[in-house]
Amino acid sequence: MLPQNLPLYQQRVEQHLQQLLANRSTTDKRLLEAMSYSLLLGGKRVRPFLVYSCGTMLGAALHDLDGPAAALEAIHSYSLIHDDLPAMDDDDLRRGKATCHKAFDEAIAILAGDALQTLAFELISSHPYRQVDTVQILQMVQQLAVAAGYSGMCGGQAIDLAQTNQNSTLAQLERMHRLKTGALIESAVQLAWLCSPKRDTTELNALLDFARALGLAFQVQDDILDIESDTATLGKPQGSDTRANKSTYPALLGLDNAKAKAQQLYHDALNALATLPYNTDELRAFAQYIIERRF
Amino acid sequence: MLPQNLPLYQQRVEQHLQQLLANRSTTDKRLLEAMSYSLLLGGKRVRPFLVYSCGTMLGAALHDLDGPAAALEAIHSYSLIHDDLPAMDDDDLRRGKATCHKAFDEAIAILAGDALQTLAFELISSHPYRQVDTVQILQMVQQLAVAAGYSGMCGGQAIDLAQTNQNSTLAQLERMHRLKTGALIESAVQLAWLCSPKRDTTELNALLDFARALGLAFQVQDDILDIESDTATLGKPQGSDTRANKSTYPALLGLDNAKAKAQQLYHDALNALATLPYNTDELRAFAQYIIERRF
Repeated sequence: MLPQNLPLYQQRVEQHLQQLLANRSTTDKRLLEAMSYSLLLGGKRVRPFLVYSCGTMLGAALHDLDGPAAALEAIHSYSLIHDDLPAMDDDDLRRGKATCHKAFDEAIAILAGDALQTLAFELISSHPYRQVDTVQILQMVQQLAVAAGYSGMCGGQAIDLAQTNQNSTLAQLERMHRLKTGALIESAVQLAWLCSPKRDTTELNALLDFARALGLAFQVQDDILDIESDTATLGKPQGSDTRANKSTYPALLGLDNAKAKAQQLYHDALNALATLPYNTDELRAFAQYIIERRF
Repeated sequence: MLPQNLPLYQQRVEQHLQQLLANRSTTDKRLLEAMSYSLLLGGKRVRPFLVYSCGTMLGAALHDLDGPAAALEAIHSYSLIHDDLPAMDDDDLRRGKATCHKAFDEAIAILAGDALQTLAFELISSHPYRQVDTVQILQMVQQLAVAAGYSGMCGGQAIDLAQTNQNSTLAQLERMHRLKTGALIESAVQLAWLCSPKRDTTELNALLDFARALGLAFQVQDDILDIESDTATLGKPQGSDTRANKSTYPALLGLDNAKAKAQQLYHDALNALATLPYNTDELRAFAQYIIERRF
């Protein structure tokens, strides 16, 4: 079952990003096209959903959440463009469409990724917040920079590259995922929390536990789908992990144990939510959606 | 004649950056090495110099200026790594040493550039400022994001790529340079101004006029040196503009008129400084250094 507000939030971030790009003056038409192409390519919008869903649960204004939701999606989008480059994962297909460097060229793809990263910091710092103080906005910038950079997502991608063709341990694999995808997922709940009025640290820690389990569950399910799904459903080539000689949960644990691991993480996520004094139905439904999805 | 404090400020930003990198925990050793390699490759440190020199002139604390100086240098360094990539300008030599993708590899070079951009936003937002308010820190983040992104440096690089092998007009060439290198040079004086206590907008506008003329003078002189200097002095291949079929001031104006243009811009820079109620000797000396330098 889809979380009730998932399509709504997907549409909301989509429209917000579309408007942002439409309002840009044309510095270089082709660069703007490449940025738009990648940013508006669809996708599950996991990070924006978490920002909106956690944020409204904590009493933040939807309008204020547009800033961090769009910023996180810009960071995510830039990372996909660069990860797909020939020198990195060399992927031609993303969400069923040509990757940025295939639709445009490598130089523009590098620049589009660069400019989307900068855009993220512009969006998070310049959004016209109504109920968020300057101190919290600055904390959001600091938090996003740590999550996206060397100690977070970028570092995780470097570890992923270094681990390719190596036999990783389960601990090494988890550390890599926790940085490469986990850092931004955790960032989503942290930014939502920073937009909210109360900001109780016990609640933040519970939300971070939830995000940590959810991020890893997402990754385990990704590895399972790479084996069990097909290219048309995935929108990217099935079996690419195996061909790229990447360590995966099924490769390390076997397929059945990987599925058990995903279930365990799902329950960890629900347990973290259970400590919160809010209606967490939507976040629970989202966790279920993440481990039951087929693409 | 070198501006008196140039070596001092170069050393200061160098030490500050070194310390910052030394204090990082090791997420991925090779990525950190690539970041350090490029960030500590030397260079004229034009942007940090402007931050320190303008900032102290305006009454800002040197300690506070370390934040924007380091952030600008991180942005500049990331842009050089990406511009040197095979898909972009394909340069093997930078400041007399192997470019990042030659010293390491393309994947790490892309990631090192990405992580240095993120680092810039971490540095500018998380620096332990003593006399700068949160409101001004947030404005610095906003300003840096605009200067570095699609409407600034990144957009300028895209225009540069699009103009290669094209016959550009003088106006097109200036617009490209004003974004590609000018945006960060203007940002240097703007960030220094934001760190200072008075923040008079008339003074800011004079400083921006100065920075605009200086940035363009720098570029005209670069084009002249590409013809008149030699590879050993430049630390990068002499004649590379001509070989890459790039529009230059000497190509559009002739060498003598390009030199006259550099002189004109130098005087524009001095005229802008003359309106300021401060001792501008150091900035005047720096403008002279920029157009008289041989590398």
